[in-house]
Amino acid sequence: MSPADGALPADPTGPLAIGVDVGGTKTAVVVTDERDRLFAERTVPTERAGLADQLITLVRGTVEDLDAPAARVMAVGLAVPGHVDRRRGTVRLAVNLSEGEMQLAALVREGTGLPTVVEHDVRAAAAWLYDRDRTPNLAYLSVGTGIAAGLVVGGRLVEGATGLAGEVGHVVADPNGPICTCGLRGCLEAVAAGPAIARLFLERSTAAGTDVRQDVAAGWVFEAATHRDPIANEVVATVAAHLARAVRALVLGFGVERVVIGGGVAGAGEALLQPILHAIDEERRVSALVDAAMSTITIELLSPDLNAGARGAAAIARSELLVT
Amino acid sequence: MSPADGALPADPTGPLAIGVDVGGTKTAVVVTDERDRLFAERTVPTERAGLADQLITLVRGTVEDLDAPAARVMAVGLAVPGHVDRRRGTVRLAVNLSEGEMQLAALVREGTGLPTVVEHDVRAAAAWLYDRDRTPNLAYLSVGTGIAAGLVVGGRLVEGATGLAGEVGHVVADPNGPICTCGLRGCLEAVAAGPAIARLFLERSTAAGTDVRQDVAAGWVFEAATHRDPIANEVVATVAAHLARAVRALVLGFGVERVVIGGGVAGAGEALLQPILHAIDEERRVSALVDAAMSTITIELLSPDLNAGARGAAAIARSELLVT
Repeated sequence: MSPADGALPADPTGPLAIGVDVGGTKTAVVVTDERDRLFAERTVPTERAGLADQLITLVRGTVEDLDAPAARVMAVGLAVPGHVDRRRGTVRLAVNLSEGEMQLAALVREGTGLPTVVEHDVRAAAAWLYDRDRTPNLAYLSVGTGIAAGLVVGGRLVEGATGLAGEVGHVVADPNGPICTCGLRGCLEAVAAGPAIARLFLERSTAAGTDVRQDVAAGWVFEAATHRDPIANEVVATVAAHLARAVRALVLGFGVERVVIGGGVAGAGEALLQPILHAIDEERRVSALVDAAMSTITIELLSPDLNAGARGAAAIARSELLVT
Repeated sequence: MSPADGALPADPTGPLAIGVDVGGTKTAVVVTDERDRLFAERTVPTERAGLADQLITLVRGTVEDLDAPAARVMAVGLAVPGHVDRRRGTVRLAVNLSEGEMQLAALVREGTGLPTVVEHDVRAAAAWLYDRDRTPNLAYLSVGTGIAAGLVVGGRLVEGATGLAGEVGHVVADPNGPICTCGLRGCLEAVAAGPAIARLFLERSTAAGTDVRQDVAAGWVFEAATHRDPIANEVVATVAAHLARAVRALVLGFGVERVVIGGGVAGAGEALLQPILHAIDEERRVSALVDAAMSTITIELLSPDLNAGARGAAAIARSELLVT
């Protein structure tokens, strides 16, 4: 129940906020102060049934176990996958969690007595990245089981009119590509998210007559690529080319100057980043426009250990719910 | 030198601004007041050599010919194609106009004595659309010789860090598509802008053994499609599917609630709009996500006669240069 490094700050600055990042398999909780310093950090398995009850218990338990005075905890921010309408506090969760619209913010507020705000997990992470260094135009591209982006434009988090801003996973990557889980053909998610990477490797291995295990995951493919497995290398290059085009779309479309790549697939680290940078270099070589657009852009990885979604949710709760 | 309807408003409200929209072949000039009412409107052929001198002469002439007092004209807004940095006032014009970076705002300011601002033509049109009804999240998609978007997010025009925000014409539409003028493969512009439409029609006609004129233009293809020419219909459907995917990208990426389609190709009117709407309906039918995202979106055409770029440039000049 204490930060990873074991060293608690002596005294919180300003009110504390709890940030909770609800993932498909695990849920991360942090408590931070106004200066984004950690006062608690914990990860538990996500309970797909009874999610609101789990969150209420989790928030209450976090407050009770806290070394700082409980009264200092003033707000809760929830970061969840799915279709989130922050203004209404509603969530239509991603398919793997539950179905139907939930008044998640209201339920947690009633169950904990704390003002609560809900935000899309990827947008929450983008908000935290912005808070850290105030780059006015940045994109956080999350590549995991799904793909989505959190966007900051002119120093403001883009929410969009429909609460769907940043759903770049369902923008076309290849009109002749495979059918996506959403029903459309050739979405970015269908060619470059974790399951697509694994499927592509299996398909190409089978086509090449190579005997491979059927339960291969994206991480394994990146690992194999670093060991110069030719099929894995080919798959990684294909996926990297798609993600490089997605980065180009973020830069050309939104004019962002910084792109941060995170999510489960980004756990592959340099094995993912370097092929993307290589693909972008190839684009710059053939196109003066892309070369001009990319010349001042920073592209980097976000470590999953940083709990950006949970910390961002806490930051949003503070700025949205507390007038300081 | 008077508005199309011949009826000049009696008296301008607030200061007047001149807006100039520099196109590849023609340049439109308007004079508007604070309420966006027209006090003059004129179109002249663009002089590709000596552009700054032409603009200075044009602005001076417009002021001299004005029925309202010349002293009321307080600012100039220039809308130009190419890479525009509004803060620096510089322009790297689109290839068909000239090459190299120009200090266009400074040159026109020196030559006219009027404070001058320069903006990308498509962004200027988006600014004007926003001024008209204040839809907080909107996209203007210009489809002509090139393709670009002007974006308003949360009530603010998106400039981007690099001055390239909205260059959606060079986002990938088909990774196996033809090479674009920019050097990349399969850009949206390479499969759905005016020249691509004409080329696609010629290619398919030739492949079908049909004898066609070689100087066919996009407008002619739309015209032929309305007369049920089977190859023209096929080309229009292909192009409309690409543009429908671009609209989807604008809605899912930026969360816009209104998409306005303009530019030269949009001169085809309903012959362009209806196939796009049909393609979007097809996407909605197969994808619950797209159906949810599109359910509240307005998609409409912008008439080229409205001189949106010039009026937007005048509006930007007023809000940027004049403290009222």
